[in-house]
Amino acid sequence: ARTGLGFDVHRLVAGAPLWLCGVEIPHSHGLSGHSDADVAIHALVDAILGALAEGDIGSHFPPSDPQWRGARSGQFLAFAAERVRARGGIIDHVDVTIICEAPKIGPHRDAMRSALARIMDIPESRVSVKATTTERLGLTGRGEGIAAQTLA
Amino acid sequence: ARTGLGFDVHRLVAGAPLWLCGVEIPHSHGLSGHSDADVAIHALVDAILGALAEGDIGSHFPPSDPQWRGARSGQFLAFAAERVRARGGIIDHVDVTIICEAPKIGPHRDAMRSALARIMDIPESRVSVKATTTERLGLTGRGEGIAAQTLA
Amino acid sequence: ARTGLGFDVHRLVAGAPLWLCGVEIPHSHGLSGHSDADVAIHALVDAILGALAEGDIGSHFPPSDPQWRGARSGQFLAFAAERVRARGGIIDHVDVTIICEAPKIGPHRDAMRSALARIMDIPESRVSVKATTTERLGLTGRGEGIAAQTLA
Ligand SMILES: [Mg+2]
Ligand SMILES: [Mg+2]
Ligand SMILES: [Mg+2]
Repeated sequence: ARTGLGFDVHRLVAGAPLWLCGVEIPHSHGLSGHSDADVAIHALVDAILGALAEGDIGSHFPPSDPQWRGARSGQFLAFAAERVRARGGIIDHVDVTIICEAPKIGPHRDAMRSALARIMDIPESRVSVKATTTERLGLTGRGEGIAAQTLA
Repeated sequence: ARTGLGFDVHRLVAGAPLWLCGVEIPHSHGLSGHSDADVAIHALVDAILGALAEGDIGSHFPPSDPQWRGARSGQFLAFAAERVRARGGIIDHVDVTIICEAPKIGPHRDAMRSALARIMDIPESRVSVKATTTERLGLTGRGEGIAAQTLA
Repeated sequence: ARTGLGFDVHRLVAGAPLWLCGVEIPHSHGLSGHSDADVAIHALVDAILGALAEGDIGSHFPPSDPQWRGARSGQFLAFAAERVRARGGIIDHVDVTIICEAPKIGPHRDAMRSALARIMDIPESRVSVKATTTERLGLTGRGEGIAAQTLA
């Protein structure tokens, strides 16, 4: 049983779509960056790759590569889950923490767990999605970006 | 064996009591926020709930609910530990990291380990409490708040 | 199977040597602080000590103690790995995440994995090294410091 830890931050910008855990969330701001910038999935991909010791999301899907511009991050996660199976492993449990002041994550938790479970092809009961704020402090507290931290 | 990851930040304010890991620490500043604002216990509760995939501390004890105003966070941790037992599990090991410039955590480590062990009803040898600074950088480095990161 | 989590931040200063994961990286800036300030090894030592519930790097190697000034952090990691063996354990897997805007970590990943594996005396296949940026946000995004987060 190996465990990996992922962390990522993306910048919030006005008017962009907001994807988190494979779900589009209605919000005044969205995330910019690599692909659809789904910071939670990026951190989860890194946690899985970390457990496998197979590099990181940037080594498999370089942000500089135009083919990933605007890409749905779900395909990165499907790739990581497939790597686990190719190595003869199973994804026993994943735990995602989204760190932001807004939007509220709770109302979307079930949809997020369901989306992640579907992409990884594991039971929803093995997918945890949590959220916390940083009490208006720091980059997430000022609403400059959203961070995600994940264990797999 | 499932593992969960918790993270939390609370704001430091002058003259408030400082609770960390269930221990009141003499210090010029204390934490404000939800309940007694024991940021380390909050992160630990989230780690346990993450391992169980049973939501997060905010979904069980909403900060907006007046009944938790000023509440001792130990009761949230006792609840989480009870959930583990109700699911037929045991808390094998917890590892708490407190991130702050001040106060020094080392002198309180033993009291903290003992308090957490007592609340969760597990041996002290299974409770790790660590601390680090961020070298006067960032929100914790400027003394605006204390962060805690926990594995369970 | 116990798991520990380590986190550390060190300050970037112009002209200092930059040590990360036991490898010296050519870069305009280096890290200042305790010992050679290898923030990734510090976080890894804390993860291992956290899994053992044996305090933290600061309790074993106090930054205030002049004997550790300029010390190579590899010796702290060798100590932690030895503590695992002394307790009858093995280091099954470690996962290091380096959080910085620059330098690029990818080109040094293999050297870092190899250096860490050698110090801990475990196979390189059990050592994961990953990197992420915070998109120019926060203390790492502004280049004020480098953070590392580690699981062991
Ligand atoms: Mg990303
Ligand atoms: Mg809290
Ligand atoms: Mg350090």
